[in-house]
Amino acid sequence: MMNNQRVTIVEKIMDANDRLAGINRSLLDENGIFAINLMASPGAGKTSLILKTIEALTSQIRIGVIEGDTAPVTIDADKVHAAGMPAVQINTGGDCHLDAVMVNNALQQMPLKELDLLIVENVGNLICPAAFQLGTHANVLIASIPEGDDKPYKYPQIYRGVSALVINKIDLLPYVKFDMDYFRQGVEMLNPGLVTFPLSCQTGEGISNWVNWLKEQVSIRKIT
Amino acid sequence: MMNNQRVTIVEKIMDANDRLAGINRSLLDENGIFAINLMASPGAGKTSLILKTIEALTSQIRIGVIEGDTAPVTIDADKVHAAGMPAVQINTGGDCHLDAVMVNNALQQMPLKELDLLIVENVGNLICPAAFQLGTHANVLIASIPEGDDKPYKYPQIYRGVSALVINKIDLLPYVKFDMDYFRQGVEMLNPGLVTFPLSCQTGEGISNWVNWLKEQVSIRKIT
Repeated sequence: MMNNQRVTIVEKIMDANDRLAGINRSLLDENGIFAINLMASPGAGKTSLILKTIEALTSQIRIGVIEGDTAPVTIDADKVHAAGMPAVQINTGGDCHLDAVMVNNALQQMPLKELDLLIVENVGNLICPAAFQLGTHANVLIASIPEGDDKPYKYPQIYRGVSALVINKIDLLPYVKFDMDYFRQGVEMLNPGLVTFPLSCQTGEGISNWVNWLKEQVSIRKIT
Repeated sequence: MMNNQRVTIVEKIMDANDRLAGINRSLLDENGIFAINLMASPGAGKTSLILKTIEALTSQIRIGVIEGDTAPVTIDADKVHAAGMPAVQINTGGDCHLDAVMVNNALQQMPLKELDLLIVENVGNLICPAAFQLGTHANVLIASIPEGDDKPYKYPQIYRGVSALVINKIDLLPYVKFDMDYFRQGVEMLNPGLVTFPLSCQTGEGISNWVNWLKEQVSIRKIT
């Protein structure tokens, strides 16, 4: 009985989340903003990718960032501010993922009319964030070379639900064991044809392919 | 009202978990087993450390492993089996952490009378596992150099609750930005005097300090 009660409550929470994700999406669409939900394990390079993206696009595209953190530290938000872009921090208070309610609160604080692209940096976690719609247009996952080539096999859920995959820290390939074919086979099995961007936020290699994809997504959204 | 109901259910679940963690602890103590709960983000080197530990201690200490995975892949359990040690896999079915119920089920399948040391490899996650007692004697966290030096500041909860910290992949220090002083200041702030083991599962550097600590913990448990 307790289990049934629990399941009902969880379903209600997920329904409420999905409804609010729909409201977030409308808000983004009304303002012609393309929004991504950026997910990765801790230290895979979410903030580094955001900073590289801002650097590459700063004169062409107006970018806002929502920074999800489990603790009240503003390390990441401060870096985005320093790069001259509007950033709102969400402190989840120990929670392991962002949800649509938190993102809705953050959207109220963003200058939406002034933005083309919104990047939501989720909490560093390969599991829980996969279950929560935020209202963004694309889920983007960052894999990181030193994490190893078996991650698609071990965390399949998050690989299934993304529309782009960044493979970061390719500059470390000479120093770690990483079988790119084995990795790509795992990805292809879970998400056939997934667009991937091998790159290095350290050296800048591959960044241009990633930002060109983003520019394309933004321009499609502006026309329609 | 729904919130109150939810809180009550969550409290009941945590109470039940803690009671079962106590039962697990008794079971381990009766069999003179020292048990650790090994936590880390995905790809920090949990399985690599377990394999290196088995390699170093195989003739001296009898080691059992419980492998927590979010998916039904047996990649890690197979590696432990291949190293000649008993391993039981827990598939959490997408859940983001192990709990005492899962560990209790796995303990029923282990040859407890034949073991000195039990290593429970938790799901790769820096957030949720910190909240669940399993009944093990020590929580051990692995940090990984390429994850970056800001992790204690961004994931404080898990750093607070551990009794040992392994700092893995020190062989990558020359190739990444990592300020060891800044990292250690963050750790010291959250968990003063925490014992740390900088090491590399790749080169073997530092492994002996880690296994000596384990041997000491096992021998203390055997005497008392």
